[in-house]
Amino acid sequence: MRIKELSSRSGVSVPTIKYYLREGLLPAGELVSKNQANYDDAHLRRLRLIRALVDIGGLTIAAIRDVLAAADTPEETVRKILYTAQENISVRPDLPRDEVWAEAERNVADLVERRGWQVNHDSRAWQTVVAVLVSARELEHGVWTHKLDIYAEACERIAAADLDYVAGIEEVDAMLEGVVVGTVLGDTLVTALRRLAHQSESVRRLGDDKHE
Amino acid sequence: MRIKELSSRSGVSVPTIKYYLREGLLPAGELVSKNQANYDDAHLRRLRLIRALVDIGGLTIAAIRDVLAAADTPEETVRKILYTAQENISVRPDLPRDEVWAEAERNVADLVERRGWQVNHDSRAWQTVVAVLVSARELEHGVWTHKLDIYAEACERIAAADLDYVAGIEEVDAMLEGVVVGTVLGDTLVTALRRLAHQSESVRRLGDDKHE
Repeated sequence: MRIKELSSRSGVSVPTIKYYLREGLLPAGELVSKNQANYDDAHLRRLRLIRALVDIGGLTIAAIRDVLAAADTPEETVRKILYTAQENISVRPDLPRDEVWAEAERNVADLVERRGWQVNHDSRAWQTVVAVLVSARELEHGVWTHKLDIYAEACERIAAADLDYVAGIEEVDAMLEGVVVGTVLGDTLVTALRRLAHQSESVRRLGDDKHE
Repeated sequence: MRIKELSSRSGVSVPTIKYYLREGLLPAGELVSKNQANYDDAHLRRLRLIRALVDIGGLTIAAIRDVLAAADTPEETVRKILYTAQENISVRPDLPRDEVWAEAERNVADLVERRGWQVNHDSRAWQTVVAVLVSARELEHGVWTHKLDIYAEACERIAAADLDYVAGIEEVDAMLEGVVVGTVLGDTLVTALRRLAHQSESVRRLGDDKHE
């Protein structure tokens, strides 16, 4: 297909497609004449992935390059590709690495060992869990974090459902798109469902008792 | 205590405390002379709550007024107070209320009925769940949302732990602070633990298999 059709089918404007081509995010099409190129379904899938990374994942061009580089490395493992996508969708927390941090990190290490999880201690997700414990303690709500195991067990069930979905997608760009959509929309879904569950549990336990 | 001590104990600057007093967020202290007032532990707790609402909850002054008004209404139910706090911490999604929305909303209504949840169909949390379904379908990842029941069940467990914590706090301002901290930090914690669980599940299922 020509660039006009690629544009209408993907919903991405021609100037934006040309920008992605110049930035090397989208591979060149097959030249059919001096000024015209032919694009195929692989280009369409790659464009959809880039849009998901931008619109849903909120990634910078540099971060998108990292994700696509992993996706395009033939000998790269699927697990590494997924991890690269996850890292680039996540924020690195910005707290000092002091003794409070070190203690919170020990708690997270203990949790991960209790649950039998194999995770990367340098990942942003790990750092974020530690950062939450530090923040909760500083706000003197540290006791709340003793529910960590309940949260972790709930997340195991969620992750199993997520991997069921993602691992069923054969093609790498489509799988990555599923990861980005699933991760970011999934964050919003889980937090919203948690609030609905709070509402319901609140009704169940508190009914309409007046406060003092 | 005088305003200087209130400031040092709360970590809030004197000018900011005076601003909260002018805005009516903080009740006036007991006047001991023309220019000096005495503050007590209730002022300290109220200040801590306001800071949590601002720093953690990201609320506007108007939103904080709504939450505090509910907290200060003697005949208001605890459940309503919690709900008011939740609404003001949440964003109202901005999608058109069309037939796609209506169908997604029916799916959410069915889910809530299956789980036996008592929730508010006008709440921001409800609208957000519907918005996620709409977005996922528009991205042609609608099938992923068939995992809704698994997510909902996981959130029930999380909500039970959250309510255990919050319902155990007697004093209203401290309870609300627990709700704000628990809700917002809890969002960050759940999403980060979900990513760690993804990492671990990914290792478990995919090991180091190379992709095509």
